[in-house]
Amino acid sequence: MRLFVGAGLLAAAWMGPVMADPLPSWQGESKEKIISFVEAVSEVGGADYVTPADRVAVFDNDGTLWAEQPVYFQLIFAVDQVAKLAAQDPSILTSDALKAAAAGDYEALAATGKEGLLEVLAASHTEVSLYQFQQDVAAWLEEARHPKTGLRYDEMTYQPMVELLRYLRDEGFQTYIVSGGGIQFMRVFAEDAYGIPPQQVIGSSITSSYEMIDGVPVIMKGAELFFNDDKAGKPVGIMHHIGKQPILAGGNSDGDFEMLEFTTTGEGARLGVYVHHTDAEREWAYDREGHIGVLNRGLDEADARGWVLIDMKEDWSRIFTGEGAE
Amino acid sequence: MRLFVGAGLLAAAWMGPVMADPLPSWQGESKEKIISFVEAVSEVGGADYVTPADRVAVFDNDGTLWAEQPVYFQLIFAVDQVAKLAAQDPSILTSDALKAAAAGDYEALAATGKEGLLEVLAASHTEVSLYQFQQDVAAWLEEARHPKTGLRYDEMTYQPMVELLRYLRDEGFQTYIVSGGGIQFMRVFAEDAYGIPPQQVIGSSITSSYEMIDGVPVIMKGAELFFNDDKAGKPVGIMHHIGKQPILAGGNSDGDFEMLEFTTTGEGARLGVYVHHTDAEREWAYDREGHIGVLNRGLDEADARGWVLIDMKEDWSRIFTGEGAE
Repeated sequence: MRLFVGAGLLAAAWMGPVMADPLPSWQGESKEKIISFVEAVSEVGGADYVTPADRVAVFDNDGTLWAEQPVYFQLIFAVDQVAKLAAQDPSILTSDALKAAAAGDYEALAATGKEGLLEVLAASHTEVSLYQFQQDVAAWLEEARHPKTGLRYDEMTYQPMVELLRYLRDEGFQTYIVSGGGIQFMRVFAEDAYGIPPQQVIGSSITSSYEMIDGVPVIMKGAELFFNDDKAGKPVGIMHHIGKQPILAGGNSDGDFEMLEFTTTGEGARLGVYVHHTDAEREWAYDREGHIGVLNRGLDEADARGWVLIDMKEDWSRIFTGEGAE
Repeated sequence: MRLFVGAGLLAAAWMGPVMADPLPSWQGESKEKIISFVEAVSEVGGADYVTPADRVAVFDNDGTLWAEQPVYFQLIFAVDQVAKLAAQDPSILTSDALKAAAAGDYEALAATGKEGLLEVLAASHTEVSLYQFQQDVAAWLEEARHPKTGLRYDEMTYQPMVELLRYLRDEGFQTYIVSGGGIQFMRVFAEDAYGIPPQQVIGSSITSSYEMIDGVPVIMKGAELFFNDDKAGKPVGIMHHIGKQPILAGGNSDGDFEMLEFTTTGEGARLGVYVHHTDAEREWAYDREGHIGVLNRGLDEADARGWVLIDMKEDWSRIFTGEGAE
């Protein structure tokens, strides 16, 4: 009898973590749909079982795993970096766009158009060693604070999505980022923020080269676009880096449409997930209009395609990891 | 007492596989150097300990993991594929190079120069869906046999290197291919042949695109070079796909020099390994001269850089996986 009591206790201790709610910051139907999909593909012998090697899940970053307002955080890094470089050497401010960036004047910068934006990105992202660039990003993350929340940018990751990533890995999934953001920019924080190691980060990139500088091998970032990991580029990036069709994709804008379409086409259980920004109070509310994260086709077709539309306001009890439990 | 006997048996059973020779097809000094490196970086608390996440090992493919004579096997696929396509539609044979390929006449093909070679590669590798291309490669691997050995090409992998890859993974390493060969070509056999999954295969590639064909999403291979994963391109490819400097690199030619140089520069224990083709009888003997796998700088500098030079004839008791134990 004593033996059975012991075994029972052991079983309870063993099953405890398994029985715990894997998505504590989630509620409602989208939570149920996600859990039921994950359970279906990981149930050995079940009709929808997928072998762990094929449990590939891909997620957009900006607006899906962390916030993207008032502008992409990587652009804020670029602007801050121009200001930092100009403080050391004001002679780099050779254009209105660079001057606007150094002054932190986003309106004046926007007025310089796409060309001005590219100048600011070039000044902060190109012709620098990869090592130095990533040191710059790390230093910026330490210092910079978001104008609305006062949080570090890497604390403006979405707690529910961090829970989802962890839950998926606990259930044998490989989790990838597939973002229009810079591949080497995201790698600076993706492992700490999301538990996603560098080799599972896919993004846009510029060319780079291998050079010997003072007898030491250095990877230098060049100045030409190498790959644009957005829209139809996302499935291309996936097949280039992973070489395998995912079974779960998450995004928040029409820039993710092709990734969700590619992921959810074909045999077997598949899931597309859209984060819908509906919470003007705790985050931002936007979809069909704006300069960022526009979601039109996705909103129109999500239902017919069986994609889960996450209502941030209703489905998430907590938003940012940096705000602590509410 | 009985308890201790039981524990002893358990320990013996447990340690059995660990104590077994991890590299049974190896002998001599290069075997000792490799094992001592692997033990040093995986000994918890040791001076050279490296955390598993940083135990990244990269290997060239042609001439390092499988043979590359009389010509790269991927070129043989290209030639055979042109013959196969021409049998269905002879009108594709619009040049001397394509006619030579369809006739399996490598001498005549070589006479058409680099331009002719590119025509053959284009006819067999471009403007085809990625799915169809990989089906073609798989079908070719089933049918084709090497002219000298009569083996399947994916049986001309080196048994000692397959053992090394497995040993490294058993010791917590991530094993990658970093090859000048085609990334999508190698993915067809890398998992079965080497235990290396698609996402850990890095290679050269041509552009590709995402297209909807009859309502189905398809990745189409284009016709332009996207990335040349050779020489100084190898460290670039590594930092693009893995985002982390490896601690072990293996190659066989000067095309791998920069990869070994990059891998073995910096702090901590690092190992470079060159496979030296010295066995004219069981394999091929070549180094400083030839049209393939030329090894000059590597031979000159290996000693001074502390790189292991594997003497195939002396250090390997067995060559091809497909030949069975000798």
